[in-house]
Amino acid sequence: MTGDDLRDQVRDAARRSRRAAAGPAQATRADKDALLHAMADELVSRSAEVLAANERDVAAAREAGTPEALVDRLRLDADRIAGMAGGLRTVAGLPDPVGEVVRGDVLANGLQLQQVRVPLGVVGIVYEGRPNVTADAAGLAVKAGNAVLLRGSSSAERSNTALVAVLSEVAVAHGFAADTIQLLPCHDRATVQHLITARGLVDIVIPRGGAGLISAVVEQATVPTIETGVGNCHVYVDASADVDTALRILLNSKTRRPSVCNSAETVLVHRDIAAEFLPRALAELASAGVTVHGDESVQAVGGSNVVPAVDEDWDAEYLSLDIAARVVESLPAAIEHIREHGSGHTEAIVTTDVRSSRRFAAQVDAAAVAVNASTAFTDGAEFGMGAEIGISTQKLHARGPMGLPELTSTKWLTFGDGHVRPGS
Amino acid sequence: MTGDDLRDQVRDAARRSRRAAAGPAQATRADKDALLHAMADELVSRSAEVLAANERDVAAAREAGTPEALVDRLRLDADRIAGMAGGLRTVAGLPDPVGEVVRGDVLANGLQLQQVRVPLGVVGIVYEGRPNVTADAAGLAVKAGNAVLLRGSSSAERSNTALVAVLSEVAVAHGFAADTIQLLPCHDRATVQHLITARGLVDIVIPRGGAGLISAVVEQATVPTIETGVGNCHVYVDASADVDTALRILLNSKTRRPSVCNSAETVLVHRDIAAEFLPRALAELASAGVTVHGDESVQAVGGSNVVPAVDEDWDAEYLSLDIAARVVESLPAAIEHIREHGSGHTEAIVTTDVRSSRRFAAQVDAAAVAVNASTAFTDGAEFGMGAEIGISTQKLHARGPMGLPELTSTKWLTFGDGHVRPGS
Repeated sequence: MTGDDLRDQVRDAARRSRRAAAGPAQATRADKDALLHAMADELVSRSAEVLAANERDVAAAREAGTPEALVDRLRLDADRIAGMAGGLRTVAGLPDPVGEVVRGDVLANGLQLQQVRVPLGVVGIVYEGRPNVTADAAGLAVKAGNAVLLRGSSSAERSNTALVAVLSEVAVAHGFAADTIQLLPCHDRATVQHLITARGLVDIVIPRGGAGLISAVVEQATVPTIETGVGNCHVYVDASADVDTALRILLNSKTRRPSVCNSAETVLVHRDIAAEFLPRALAELASAGVTVHGDESVQAVGGSNVVPAVDEDWDAEYLSLDIAARVVESLPAAIEHIREHGSGHTEAIVTTDVRSSRRFAAQVDAAAVAVNASTAFTDGAEFGMGAEIGISTQKLHARGPMGLPELTSTKWLTFGDGHVRPGS
Repeated sequence: MTGDDLRDQVRDAARRSRRAAAGPAQATRADKDALLHAMADELVSRSAEVLAANERDVAAAREAGTPEALVDRLRLDADRIAGMAGGLRTVAGLPDPVGEVVRGDVLANGLQLQQVRVPLGVVGIVYEGRPNVTADAAGLAVKAGNAVLLRGSSSAERSNTALVAVLSEVAVAHGFAADTIQLLPCHDRATVQHLITARGLVDIVIPRGGAGLISAVVEQATVPTIETGVGNCHVYVDASADVDTALRILLNSKTRRPSVCNSAETVLVHRDIAAEFLPRALAELASAGVTVHGDESVQAVGGSNVVPAVDEDWDAEYLSLDIAARVVESLPAAIEHIREHGSGHTEAIVTTDVRSSRRFAAQVDAAAVAVNASTAFTDGAEFGMGAEIGISTQKLHARGPMGLPELTSTKWLTFGDGHVRPGS
């Protein structure tokens, strides 16, 4: 296929998506929820064909020498399909964002004013690895009244094709257009390029994936995009921290699931608590298999798992059993370190001092600030959003976990009795 | 100055703006309101120096042969300065958006969750013509807790320099950094280019101006931007419309101020009311000096001010005493015409049929939909936002008139007692 053919194919898919979008946009909540429940049922009852397709993806990945951790992300089984179905049912149970009156007023001249939530229209999602994103994204997008263009990874193409076939057939059976949920070609990277420049055809593109994908999208997109997911998260242990609490939060933030964006990558320790906290923290991190990239103060405490930190460590998103560690002079120094090195995802403080907690919460500029809680809670499901479409680390439109309201826009309605505006 | 020098200058200004932003971000509402009132007072008491600078801009514009309508947009006088001061005082009287709890909950595990409004940080505004935007934008940005980088037109450079000198000196007198309100170089178009690519230094850029400026910004920006202001607004006269009401709304929407983005550019008339409505409408439009670019049905009614419509007329944003006019078969045909040609700004229906009004309001996809009201109400001041920073015609982050909340982001706060997340 030539580049122009692919471009035409993507733009044609977007045009069909735009036409299909009228279905979910005008559907009642009851119709959308019935669709989501039927999708869940059908994914379970047709799991054999999805799993067969997934087996071929897994076999091909193994043949290509893909690391087993990535193969595991790709792999589906009955439990994971049940998880997708459960996600769809959870989303069906959430309030319908469409039609919500966000603000409303009657103006001095009697004109009635309402700002109401409306669907975005056509939502594009670019993602890697895990095929469960296919069901999560489709369910959230449709419940929020949108059509969705999915662009998964080439490694999951057979799985995603099977999943979208099921979801799309259910959509048709429920009176929606087949194009409501579409999978774009997954092999050519140019698909992404064509999607993010389909201005006027696509309303938003959300890239989920590594820093490389996200910055390419941001550089080249003419369609509005939402930056997601790069997390250089910090745990700051205040002078006043309860040491047991700090250890529990640090270990959970680092080791619960090191490969996800809400895991901690740096621990900052107030110098007044360092002598008490660091020996225990380094020992517990060692037991958990974590390598600590420490500054000189941390190195001075020592331990078999401590290596010297270099400048790059303060900016690293390891996504592995590594953590950078630094002793800071003060709370403001911790805030300044985070300002300089944080990625605006999640920053945690462990403290017993109410002034420190207020200051940290007010001055740290991030999608989420956790006070005496693990960074691992920054997650759509944890926040009660059902599945999530990604975690925005930008400040516009959506910040933090993105659920249903984040997949909508708003519209102003004015109702008059022939009102005209005086003056010129 | 070389291109690199200008780039360094813009980026340096952005860095200083970022440092200055801590001031308004952490200021109390009382401090911000006191600042805005002092700015208003000082603009009035130092109006002589502002007006003197403006006289030089006006003289230069006349010398350069600028059309008198544009010179008028540039010109300041005591009334217009009083208007700026009044805008600042209105904004001071509005609730502080910063700190508002947008959503809040206690999760099943006892973790307390709050989504709170926070400033964006550094806001860049690119605008043309009218120097009053300088005061409006500065007031709104600072009240919403931001620092602001202003890039006005070169024709208003002396006026804007004088205005920013006053505003910035007042900021310093109130304990804010001088860099809180900065004017960027206005002569070189490359300033805009450097501003919209200062990723990581600037949080948002809002272009206010013509379609050319806006599309250049959208194409080249790596900083998030908000598209504003292109308005191809329609007035649809339903079969059931009250003819007097329809005439009043059409004339107001078209002629109140033809040069602004919320003025009507096309009137769509249901065929069942065309015979009654069109002769009176064409006559009234003729009296108001409006040229009508009509389809064949409109031409058949005739009139000295009717010219044949060509395809381009349906997409034209005239911003003049011109209007396109078309007879449509049905309400769905009107909605389809708007879907194809509208710019997503403001669309009005005149109707007495509640079903038509509901259908139009639900199916027309625009920043604002007016039912039996003039398109001219789509305006921040009319909507009770004080001054406005522009009217967004995009769907992300802000849609319609942008006031204080639209100049903020949000942050999630979690408060725990040592909460960690189970599972892996």
